[in-house]
This record gives sequence, C-alpha cells and structure tokens, in this order.
Amino acid sequence: MALIVQKFGGTSVGTLERIRNVAKIIQKEREQGNKVVVVVSAMAGVTDNLVNDALFLSRIKTNEELAEYDSIIAAGEQISCGLIALALINKGIKARSWLGWQVPIFTDGIFSNGKITHIETKQLMKCLEEGEIPVIAGFQGVYNDRIITLGRGGSDTTAAAIAAALKADRCDIYTDVDGVYTADPRIVPKAGKLKHVAFDEMLEMASSGAKVLHSRCVEIAMKFDLKMQVLSSFDNGVGTMIVGEDQIVEKHIVTGITCKGDIASITLKAMSDVPGSASQLFNSMEEKNINVDLIVQNIGSRGKTDLTITIAKNDLDKALDSIETNKKINCRDIIVDDNVAKISIIGIGMKSHSGVAQKMFQILADRGINILVISTSEIKISVLVHAEYKELAVRALHAGYGLDK
Amino acid sequence: MALIVQKFGGTSVGTLERIRNVAKIIQKEREQGNKVVVVVSAMAGVTDNLVNDALFLSRIKTNEELAEYDSIIAAGEQISCGLIALALINKGIKARSWLGWQVPIFTDGIFSNGKITHIETKQLMKCLEEGEIPVIAGFQGVYNDRIITLGRGGSDTTAAAIAAALKADRCDIYTDVDGVYTADPRIVPKAGKLKHVAFDEMLEMASSGAKVLHSRCVEIAMKFDLKMQVLSSFDNGVGTMIVGEDQIVEKHIVTGITCKGDIASITLKAMSDVPGSASQLFNSMEEKNINVDLIVQNIGSRGKTDLTITIAKNDLDKALDSIETNKKINCRDIIVDDNVAKISIIGIGMKSHSGVAQKMFQILADRGINILVISTSEIKISVLVHAEYKELAVRALHAGYGLDK
Repeated sequence: MALIVQKFGGTSVGTLERIRNVAKIIQKEREQGNKVVVVVSAMAGVTDNLVNDALFLSRIKTNEELAEYDSIIAAGEQISCGLIALALINKGIKARSWLGWQVPIFTDGIFSNGKITHIETKQLMKCLEEGEIPVIAGFQGVYNDRIITLGRGGSDTTAAAIAAALKADRCDIYTDVDGVYTADPRIVPKAGKLKHVAFDEMLEMASSGAKVLHSRCVEIAMKFDLKMQVLSSFDNGVGTMIVGEDQIVEKHIVTGITCKGDIASITLKAMSDVPGSASQLFNSMEEKNINVDLIVQNIGSRGKTDLTITIAKNDLDKALDSIETNKKINCRDIIVDDNVAKISIIGIGMKSHSGVAQKMFQILADRGINILVISTSEIKISVLVHAEYKELAVRALHAGYGLDK
Repeated sequence: MALIVQKFGGTSVGTLERIRNVAKIIQKEREQGNKVVVVVSAMAGVTDNLVNDALFLSRIKTNEELAEYDSIIAAGEQISCGLIALALINKGIKARSWLGWQVPIFTDGIFSNGKITHIETKQLMKCLEEGEIPVIAGFQGVYNDRIITLGRGGSDTTAAAIAAALKADRCDIYTDVDGVYTADPRIVPKAGKLKHVAFDEMLEMASSGAKVLHSRCVEIAMKFDLKMQVLSSFDNGVGTMIVGEDQIVEKHIVTGITCKGDIASITLKAMSDVPGSASQLFNSMEEKNINVDLIVQNIGSRGKTDLTITIAKNDLDKALDSIETNKKINCRDIIVDDNVAKISIIGIGMKSHSGVAQKMFQILADRGINILVISTSEIKISVLVHAEYKELAVRALHAGYGLDK
C-alpha cells in the first residue's frame, strides 16, 4: 500500500462541480489500494478577491498589516479544504480538513512569505491509520498562534513538504495542464508532453517561465528525493514525472524551451568597477522588493564596466527611481529596454555535450534575431531578444533541437 | 476610562466602505478616552453563500459534516475581522484580529450550535494594556483544536460573553436598526424608539418576533448584569439601552407589540390524555429538528384532550409526516392551519396590573379579529390570529395601549 499526496490547484477546485470531480479522483486513487493525503489551493479567484479587499483598506506594508493580510487570505484554503472534505464524506469516504494551525505546519514567522520549518505528523499519521483522508489547507502555516502564508507557489510547497514529512511514495500535483511540455503549446503547437523531467531541469524551467511548478516546491522534492508528478485534474491521462537525474536513461541535450516576456533590461554603462558597486545596486533593488532575474557583467577595463540586469516590466519605474536616487551608484549612462523577452534552452544533457550554445546562436542568427545578452548555467542557456521576436525564437529553437512532434 | 465592547453586525460591515465607516465609529469611541474591544459578524451575504456551497456538496447531518461546515462558515468572520483590523491600522490605530481559537474562546464542542464555556482573557487584557484594539471574530469558538460555530445570533452571543468576561462597562450592539421600537415601524408608522427596555422584556421580544437581539445574548447580559445598548452604525443617534428591571423608573404596562408571521398551528383533537403522550409528540419534533414555539393544552375530559402547537410554516410538512408516522400518538383528528400569526404584548408593568389581557381581547374583538389560541407568561400575552389580520391587530393594540407617538 503506497502513500500518495495529491495536490489540487485553484482551477481544479474552481467550482463546486469541479470539487465533486476532485473527490472522484481522490476516490479512484484510494480504490487502487493507496493511502491518500490531499493538499488544496483556494478556489480560483477567491484569493485574488481577498487580496484586493485587503489592499483597498490598507497598503499592507507593516508587519501588523501583513499579519492581518495573511489571516484574511488564508480563509480561501480554509473554505476549499472544508468543501473537499464534505464532498468526500458525501461519497461515504472518511475525511477531515486540516488547517495550518491544526496540523500544525510550523513556519519561521515571516508573514506573507513564510518558510516551513517543521510539520508535526503525529495527528496526520493517526488519521491515516484510521483510514481517514486528511485534506490539508495549502499555502498556510502557523507561528506563535498566528496564521502565516507561504508566498507564491505556497500550496505546491505545502504538498512537497507534507510528502517529505510523511515519506510519501509519490506527490501528484493536479493542475489545469496535463504535464510539462517541451515548450508552451500556445506558442509552439508542435510542442510535446515530456514523460520525465529531471529536478534540475524543472527548477530551471520554473525560474525561466514555465508556470507549472514553483521552484520552492521542486527544491523540496529534490532535497528529499520525492517522486513528483504533474498532471491534469480535467482528463485521465498520464502526466509528467519529475525525477532524479539518475532515473533518466536517455538524457536529452535540450529538454525544453522556455520564454518569459514582460521583462525590462537596465544596463549601467561604464559603472565604477570597484568592489561594492554591484552590491549597492542590489541593495537598492532589495529595499524596493524588486526581483532581479538575469545579472550580466563583463570584464571591465580602465576601472569601468557595463552591468545589465533584467526585472519585471512592472517594476521598471520603481527600479529606475531607486537607481537614480542612490548616490553611491556611479555610471556614465543608464540604458533601458522595456520590451525584451528571455528565451532559454534547458537540458541536463548539455553538461556532457559541446556546441549546444553555438547551435542556439546560429539558429537565432539564421532568423535574423539579434541577441542582446547571454547568460548560462550548467544546464541552461538564456538569451535576451527583442520581445517581438519571442515566438519566432521559441519556434525556431524548438524545431532546431529536434523537439517538434 | 471605561471599557466598551462594540459589536458590528453583517450589514454594518457589508461593504468595504462600510468597514471604513465602522473604523470611524471605533476611532470615535476611543477618542472619548475609552478602551474598546470589537466583535464582528461576517460581511452580509458571505455566510449564506458559504452555507449554500456546503449544502450543495453534502446534506450536513453527521458530526463529521457539521465539523467541516463550521470550519467553512467560520471563514466569513475570519475575513471581516481581519479587514476591520486593517482599516483601523490604516488610520494609525493599533489593532489586531483574534479568531476564536486564538483568544481562545472555549466551547462545549457541539458543532454548529456550540455554547461558550470559558473565555481566556489573558492575551486580550495584555492587548488592551498596550493600547491595542482587539478585533474578535464573532460566532466562533474552539474545542479540542477544532472550530465550533455558535448557532443563530452567535456573534451577539460572542459580544455579550466577551463583555462579561472582560467586565466591560457597556456592550454596544451596532446593527442596521437604530434601537428597539414599540412595534415594527414597517407595520406601525407611529411606533416609537424605546429609550430603555428591561432584560425580561427584551427576552420576550426576541422570542416573539423582534429580530433586534438574539435571546442567548440577552440571557448572558441579564445573568452578568451587563449594560447593553442597541444602536445603528448608519446614523449617530442614541440607541436603546437594555437594563435591569430595577433601573427602569417608569414601568410601562405594555412596552411593545410584536408579531411573528409565517407560522402554522397543528391541533391534535381528542388526544389520549395519558402521561407521555405530549412527550411522544415532542420527541418526534426534536428528532426532525423542528422548533416548537407555542404549546397550548387544555384540561381534558373523558381521557381525551386537545393540544395545539405552533411551528415555522416551512417545517409543516416535516412535522405532519413525523406525527403521522409515530404510531404512539393517538388522536381523533389533526387540524392544521398554515396561515396564522402570533401577536404578543409585552411589558414588565403587567406583573402588577390586572385587566391587561381583558383589554387586549376587547381591542381585538372590536376589530372583529377572532382569537384562535391564547398563551401567557408573567410579562407577555400572546394570541394566535389569522395571518390576514396581523397588521390590523398590531396597529390596533399599539394605539389601544397608548403607544402611538
């Protein structure tokens, strides 16, 4: 008898009919002789509405405000996990809902962006032994008797952490897509579903635009060597398994192509190339809560260097304001491009193959696409291109690396 | 410096603008130099929606289902108390929300109809000492780490219990009416607002149709001799004080007229007049969760008696079904009237005056209104009349007892 953690996202529980459907999926897993633990997001739209209500009344800046904000938005998962428990009970299946403070799921106490520090499994284990299905509210934990939410991707993180704590045999992430694709099928109709993705690949994909799984969740899965599956709650097909690298027999050189639009690049030209100048820049960004994605700096000359960062387009005004008011940042010029896209090719096979980058640049050059910035990791190559070339670049690379179905 | 508990009902916090308005009312009380504790209902409509969602998925009968139901519907107050705390913080006032399990408000563990057994005041007192306003979620408590809701009128009950536990100087119940009236102003335009009502009167009014305050809340106020006020959150006028009988100088013979429509009467004609036959009937009603209001039985003769009960019209089919299937209830005939109204006159002065009932019957007879059933308590006389006479009866009695403004 295996222990399976099933996590259902917001669209999977978006209506009462869909909640009934989710109850059927849970029932089916149970009928295969497995023990099941459920983790659930809020019904789609509910959290957004609560966020908007809170922001209407207050700017949500101080810790006191964030505490109230967390308590308010955690109500979304409180409702959905109760409703799923009811749908199960109505099918004659023993079930009960568990809120973060009831489990308890302990956190570090950082409101709105908490990290899970420890999960008390005693009560959950007892629940399972008695043949009951625990339905756990995702996205929430507790610290000193106050509700803490876990930030973006929080429910996936809850699922992975619960699976790790209970030493589950598998963690199934049910969502509105049926797996991880070689590229976004809306851009590349010939994109195919991957049967397996390595943790590292999934991590790079998550951070470079694939919205299937949040990196925090993948990091936990990786750390505890969890078997994780991404699949759809709307059809019965097989999903994508996310597994350790050693479990992938045939390692693709390029497993997938991702892209991320709505980003802006800021280049500081001829910045003082002295220790601490980059740190000044990132302090400014951190203070304004701006997430910096790519960071590219070249070898400088004559005490000057060029540094480029990319950020979300929404944050551009805040970022420029912060750079201009920071007297300690010295540069000759600030060049802004608010209309770029990041294209990445990802694959664990890259480690042992040469010429992958060269091929990428050639494919893009053949289409007349100018590369603005290049950044690489062991299993990923990212380039910045002008946004208008985004789709063309993804399609060309998808075909070029032989990923078209 | 006085300690005031302010309770805001669902319509008072029904929109975000109204929540801002409530924050102003709280601020004003505080600026008068008082310590304030806030108790709040869910935003109007929220609980109803959650109830409907739960009922769509399950019939909510078993204890397991009621437990989930409570956890789901308690989210309404979780949201509203967080939003009010935010609105206060945004005004620069120190505030924090308190959920039932955080206070904690301990209950007896009866899901959906819990009674408060003990309120831990230590943390709330500390909060007050630090100049912070505790904003407490009404309607909810805790038992063995599970959320328990308090049934109808639950938030008023929370307010009264909190006021009693904290030994508050006053408990203000803010609602959408500005006080207790001599009669429903929609029926009697000449009805006037009462400055004072005795606890006993308020209790009788609550149970006979005045929807201002729930009896459980009044019972607590009475037991702990709380000063309680009913007033509107929409205007700044004075409300109605609910006080001990000894604090009312001029005792009215009749303080108010109430009426309750949509009720049905069931008369068991020539029922076996032996011990246990009434009990059989009430067992049947209890099993089906039917609330019996009036019970009238006359001295029987020849081992037979007539017994009349009144119930909500909605419950009629269930009630008849239950009576007809209970073989132990023996009677010759069952007479049903599904179109009656209960009219009551209430006043503590009745205790020391005679002729009050006679006058009531005369007033009704003068209008040609036939009295179907009479039932009395020390400070109340209730009669059943045909529903079509409801308004006429109330207006005639209001004028007859000199209550017209």
